[in-house]
Amino acid sequence: MAICDVLVVAGTHGNELNAPWLLEQWGLQPDLLPSAGLEIRTVIGNPAARLAGRRYIDRDLNRCFRSDLLDGERKELEPERARELLSLHGPDGEQPCRVAIDLHSTTAGMGNSLVIYGRRPADLALAALVQGELGLPVYLHEGDPAQTGFLVESWPCGLVIEVGPVPQGVLEARIVRQTRLALSACLNGLATARAGTARTPKVLVVHRHLGSIDFPRDGADAPMALPHPQLQDRDWRRLSPGQAVFETADGRALVPEGMHQGIPVFVNEAAYAEKHIAFSMTRREVLRVEPIWLKVLETLLRSDQVQPQAQVPLPS
Amino acid sequence: MAICDVLVVAGTHGNELNAPWLLEQWGLQPDLLPSAGLEIRTVIGNPAARLAGRRYIDRDLNRCFRSDLLDGERKELEPERARELLSLHGPDGEQPCRVAIDLHSTTAGMGNSLVIYGRRPADLALAALVQGELGLPVYLHEGDPAQTGFLVESWPCGLVIEVGPVPQGVLEARIVRQTRLALSACLNGLATARAGTARTPKVLVVHRHLGSIDFPRDGADAPMALPHPQLQDRDWRRLSPGQAVFETADGRALVPEGMHQGIPVFVNEAAYAEKHIAFSMTRREVLRVEPIWLKVLETLLRSDQVQPQAQVPLPS
Repeated sequence: MAICDVLVVAGTHGNELNAPWLLEQWGLQPDLLPSAGLEIRTVIGNPAARLAGRRYIDRDLNRCFRSDLLDGERKELEPERARELLSLHGPDGEQPCRVAIDLHSTTAGMGNSLVIYGRRPADLALAALVQGELGLPVYLHEGDPAQTGFLVESWPCGLVIEVGPVPQGVLEARIVRQTRLALSACLNGLATARAGTARTPKVLVVHRHLGSIDFPRDGADAPMALPHPQLQDRDWRRLSPGQAVFETADGRALVPEGMHQGIPVFVNEAAYAEKHIAFSMTRREVLRVEPIWLKVLETLLRSDQVQPQAQVPLPS
Repeated sequence: MAICDVLVVAGTHGNELNAPWLLEQWGLQPDLLPSAGLEIRTVIGNPAARLAGRRYIDRDLNRCFRSDLLDGERKELEPERARELLSLHGPDGEQPCRVAIDLHSTTAGMGNSLVIYGRRPADLALAALVQGELGLPVYLHEGDPAQTGFLVESWPCGLVIEVGPVPQGVLEARIVRQTRLALSACLNGLATARAGTARTPKVLVVHRHLGSIDFPRDGADAPMALPHPQLQDRDWRRLSPGQAVFETADGRALVPEGMHQGIPVFVNEAAYAEKHIAFSMTRREVLRVEPIWLKVLETLLRSDQVQPQAQVPLPS
């Protein structure tokens, strides 16, 4: 049975419409994106949630790929869908895929960006290739026990393309353009890696997750202040000392201590309010690109099996 | 029983969070907005939809204030809520209100704006007072049989404050600021009108609704193209001849004929896609402010009864 090179997932969150629309247009117009000789499969992550116009039905599908939910017998819709996606397209699935690219959008002003989970060498290689081509910022999510079970972690290599700002439920040409651009760069990067012609840049700049910051809340758990206009839509920019972070209804600026030097991302993402996240704080780090990263990716793309890759700890 | 001067409604659409938050903060902090001596009542339009985080449960509450739904026996949630709001706060209600201000937000780049429905003199007077103070653009919605039954039409005077862009489900400080500013100007305008000290500007500039434009769609009713980046977030700007209006997935610009000279509003409002509206087209018109408008508003605010006002047709 043929191994699929790349699983492209859209609509993992049912109210993020742009990537599913792009994939459907790609179906009608095959030259919309370069297949670059790769065997590609596309799938709608959460069709039931998409139909309902909601992020999810029972729980966030992109937090369901963790062993307790995957191994469990839970009858909720999304854990079942996670098991189904793996049994179809996972490394041990009926039609195993080597790499998963999961397409997302956000209400935050993230621009066109990549998210990687932990420091798997193949992910780092792919992120470096795309950053080398397009210069996209990379959010390195790691070390947060409150946020686990991301889809792409269940494949040997994978990352998220995250584009914003765009409201939930809105199709926007600029978002489609950017998603197409980033996905195209991923596919090109994978094709060159398989061909042995890929050239990674010398460094990979990442914004490493440090933690999440909640809204100031009152006793009834309601927000008492909102992200300040000086912060809203300014993801990826370092907070300066004394910078306003929140604003109250009467226009007072709140300047919490101990936040400067941090770089906020996912500022005011609609879906994160229920997770008690007003934004996430990161630190910019410059990683030297290790030759082994690309070797691991090349091996994965050329192997006649699909095997999960172990994480390779790096000096932090 | 005391007559209420102003009913301020927020959350008529359950996923528009900013105005309900503003009203709740106002409850905690009474000097957040000027009551200016007016008797004011605040209400959440659709609490069930707000709880569900959706625009509505059964149908759009802000299209339910029409006789067939109000007089009917329909058991859907929103027509029942419309009847309830009227029996509580309507002109013939238990605690009648003279004026209704309905606070909305939109995913479209409308900025801070007013919407009036038809040409009722009291509405025109209030819009003129606010435009005179703040310069806000005014969308005059009229003559569209496909869009009727707006909440404020059931009160003798009323208008919508419409602020955007903001995603559904997101609290954003800038949107709260602008809503507060426009509501404050409405309350001040009403207070001066009652006191007889109001001074309207000489003209009222309106953008008169001409019709709605749908996305180009394929046989399966799916959009084939999206509002062009040159149009997105550029509400209130006249289309120039040859300007791109839509963009396909492969980046082709579509330039429909016969649209130039029109001024789009509500470009890519999330909730309008299901209504088959990509944007609405308007024409800018400059109305001479008639002295009778303010007289009608003054009379309404001073009367010891609340009586519906008839529309006064004006030369178009």
